[in-house]
Amino acid sequence: MSKFTHIDDHGNAIMVDVSEKNQTTRTSQAEGFVYMNDKTLAMVVEGSHKKGDVLAVARIAGIQAAKKTSDLIPLCHPLMLSSVKVDFDAQPEQGRIRVLSMCKLTGQTGVEMEALTAVSVACLTVYDMCKAVDKMMRIEGVRVLSKSGGKSGDWSVVND
Amino acid sequence: MSKFTHIDDHGNAIMVDVSEKNQTTRTSQAEGFVYMNDKTLAMVVEGSHKKGDVLAVARIAGIQAAKKTSDLIPLCHPLMLSSVKVDFDAQPEQGRIRVLSMCKLTGQTGVEMEALTAVSVACLTVYDMCKAVDKMMRIEGVRVLSKSGGKSGDWSVVND
Amino acid sequence: MSKFTHIDDHGNAIMVDVSEKNQTTRTSQAEGFVYMNDKTLAMVVEGSHKKGDVLAVARIAGIQAAKKTSDLIPLCHPLMLSSVKVDFDAQPEQGRIRVLSMCKLTGQTGVEMEALTAVSVACLTVYDMCKAVDKMMRIEGVRVLSKSGGKSGDWSVVND
Amino acid sequence: MSKFTHIDDHGNAIMVDVSEKNQTTRTSQAEGFVYMNDKTLAMVVEGSHKKGDVLAVARIAGIQAAKKTSDLIPLCHPLMLSSVKVDFDAQPEQGRIRVLSMCKLTGQTGVEMEALTAVSVACLTVYDMCKAVDKMMRIEGVRVLSKSGGKSGDWSVVND
Amino acid sequence: MSKFTHIDDHGNAIMVDVSEKNQTTRTSQAEGFVYMNDKTLAMVVEGSHKKGDVLAVARIAGIQAAKKTSDLIPLCHPLMLSSVKVDFDAQPEQGRIRVLSMCKLTGQTGVEMEALTAVSVACLTVYDMCKAVDKMMRIEGVRVLSKSGGKSGDWSVVND
Amino acid sequence: MSKFTHIDDHGNAIMVDVSEKNQTTRTSQAEGFVYMNDKTLAMVVEGSHKKGDVLAVARIAGIQAAKKTSDLIPLCHPLMLSSVKVDFDAQPEQGRIRVLSMCKLTGQTGVEMEALTAVSVACLTVYDMCKAVDKMMRIEGVRVLSKSGGKSGDWSVVND
Repeated sequence: MSKFTHIDDHGNAIMVDVSEKNQTTRTSQAEGFVYMNDKTLAMVVEGSHKKGDVLAVARIAGIQAAKKTSDLIPLCHPLMLSSVKVDFDAQPEQGRIRVLSMCKLTGQTGVEMEALTAVSVACLTVYDMCKAVDKMMRIEGVRVLSKSGGKSGDWSVVND
Repeated sequence: MSKFTHIDDHGNAIMVDVSEKNQTTRTSQAEGFVYMNDKTLAMVVEGSHKKGDVLAVARIAGIQAAKKTSDLIPLCHPLMLSSVKVDFDAQPEQGRIRVLSMCKLTGQTGVEMEALTAVSVACLTVYDMCKAVDKMMRIEGVRVLSKSGGKSGDWSVVND
Repeated sequence: MSKFTHIDDHGNAIMVDVSEKNQTTRTSQAEGFVYMNDKTLAMVVEGSHKKGDVLAVARIAGIQAAKKTSDLIPLCHPLMLSSVKVDFDAQPEQGRIRVLSMCKLTGQTGVEMEALTAVSVACLTVYDMCKAVDKMMRIEGVRVLSKSGGKSGDWSVVND
Repeated sequence: MSKFTHIDDHGNAIMVDVSEKNQTTRTSQAEGFVYMNDKTLAMVVEGSHKKGDVLAVARIAGIQAAKKTSDLIPLCHPLMLSSVKVDFDAQPEQGRIRVLSMCKLTGQTGVEMEALTAVSVACLTVYDMCKAVDKMMRIEGVRVLSKSGGKSGDWSVVND
Repeated sequence: MSKFTHIDDHGNAIMVDVSEKNQTTRTSQAEGFVYMNDKTLAMVVEGSHKKGDVLAVARIAGIQAAKKTSDLIPLCHPLMLSSVKVDFDAQPEQGRIRVLSMCKLTGQTGVEMEALTAVSVACLTVYDMCKAVDKMMRIEGVRVLSKSGGKSGDWSVVND
Repeated sequence: MSKFTHIDDHGNAIMVDVSEKNQTTRTSQAEGFVYMNDKTLAMVVEGSHKKGDVLAVARIAGIQAAKKTSDLIPLCHPLMLSSVKVDFDAQPEQGRIRVLSMCKLTGQTGVEMEALTAVSVACLTVYDMCKAVDKMMRIEGVRVLSKSGGKSGDWSVVND
């Protein structure tokens, strides 16, 4: 029967032993969305053509957050990311900005949590920079899109 | 005309000067949801009666994350939270766990970002601990529910 | 003649060069004790059957501290732990809680300091959570119990 | 009846609300001991007359650790220490080095945990720098010696 | 006779006691320069009109570094900056980029180190992003330009 | 044509993908200078024969900063340094202290930024500890002296 790997047989939290796992190249992509009103979204998009804009700051915040994942999430292993990318796609018709991240390393554990952390903190940073003009923003749809490498094989969300 | 406070007149990112703002007691509440399949949710709920469970770990992660907000979000001010709470509510009929946070301080800036960061990292920690049994989880509806204190007055989401 | 490896021939502190050491699987166990009065100990033990208890928080604090060792102890190398465990054993007859840690990695340096740091911070967290009801607690007997892997071979405390 | 302040009525961990507490000057002293064999102790003492010595490094580690207390101990409040001191006293007749710390701030919470964290990390640093020549060291007697300021009044260990 | 405030009468490092100092508004400005060849400088300047450019990243790095000052510099006090600004001025005729920072807080210690840390890390980030095309860059002239607030009164570099 | 590796084809900041690079032993040396008046320099030099002196603290700060490089500089990869050294050379005839660092690892990226960060933070720490007696210090000449390992081959500044 499947069970939580982060909890041992006595119900205690553990950092799973990965020392027997293979060193393989592992990647993961994640996405998330910040919903905002039309005026705010227009301001973000317009700003994206100038230096110092909202998305440039959020991109850096997301990349740095990926590197802090094991400090933020108690049972995550420390690991050495070999690549992190964070991208944005303004989708005015849906009233939102899409945030997309990709993390990669050669190591013994997957990088889904790093991809999700990058997306979450990039979304929070967009929120922070826009909150003076829009109190009703919300962050939605934070999820893993795909992962590759590791024993469980490649996997991706269908139809996305 | 309203504009982004984190960007100066030349389009550059700045950490806003709050030194003229009043020291007042400020609070903020935020919420978020982790959607998961029924079996995973049942495992989380069942575990919540034992030590070392998923929600106890996520609660600590959320509290610690609130204290790291200014390190994660580039233009947030460092501040000294006087209280942080993180709570959970399993909602099996909606197939989700609700995460609720409350942050409080006496200071010159609001604590919405701290409340949102606590919720986001608590959600990510739930995700991390359950991902071995459920690949399709997603984090939804991360938003501010209310804030009090500060020049802009009290505010809360209606009908919530 | 044996000498301190962290100090060079001129008496200056250095981070020892380990680049010629072998990559081997290394483990270390450490222990420590928090002494407290009977009433406090009873409250901790009783709480350990409920969520949010003292030991669940201390366990997470110890695991996270192991990951911060190279940030806390100036001449420790950064390293990537592949497993961390922290356990507790209430010993009412001795008026104390025993804290036990185990750290593991495949790398070029031993993990004694990580195991000791996990124990120390778990003890401090127990202290923090109980200090409102007991001012006379003390932390005793923090030491390495065993190590394996590395050039110096396996080693363990006798009769323990 | 007295109870743990870090656990709410439902048994959940919380960061206690201190926003109603007075801003007062608060100090705390703590101590701890590193036991080692005579030869190791002689090396530490001898080294203390040269630059780069064991105790100079441990002093800095202890001071820096005091500033990280709220990052290490989950339910500690972030606070702004106004003074930290760490001192050492070699006691060859007892085969040990005594570590003494003093922390001070003007704020709403006591600084016992900061003083204890400074002592613990200074002890761990001494251990780290000497472990190549002495496998049997241990850290003992980590405790609060005194505190002043705050509602509960001044307090100190008797006969010390 | 004037002496180092960070060293006590026995020659030991201390974190100076500032608890008796007044809470006043304190500001400090600092500057530094990154020298690079003409081609590299042209690439930086050109990029500054696009999103994701070198200076936008360096600005964020400098702001975040100001907040980490007490973690980087052992005897600095933790403090709560109320404002941080980092600016750049390309000076092609001198073959350099000027970095200028301003830090501000209401507190008991000056913010020169925060301003200098912001400048230093912004310079290092410019270096990092350009090093693939220019191996001979160097960082020069990092200094405090002015400070205001505090017992020692206002002060600024003459002719600058 | 050469271009910035930290910026992609759309002008966005990225953390470069190094997963295809070879694991090789890489070293880098960097230097920097703190200029100060004669009296201050004499105080630093004199103190260097006692415990707790300025240079002992700056050495530790430099070593610890090298380990924090990827946290300070947004697009640097996390990596596991196998050795860090920081040294000082008082040069009274030039009115300055020279700071020299050496970093080493076996990995996929160079360690120039780590060496530069160690030098910069060691310089800042010297500045911090002397600023009470000398307001006109400045940090000059921070640069890479040599690097070895990696695809681009060995390299060093000529005539140094």
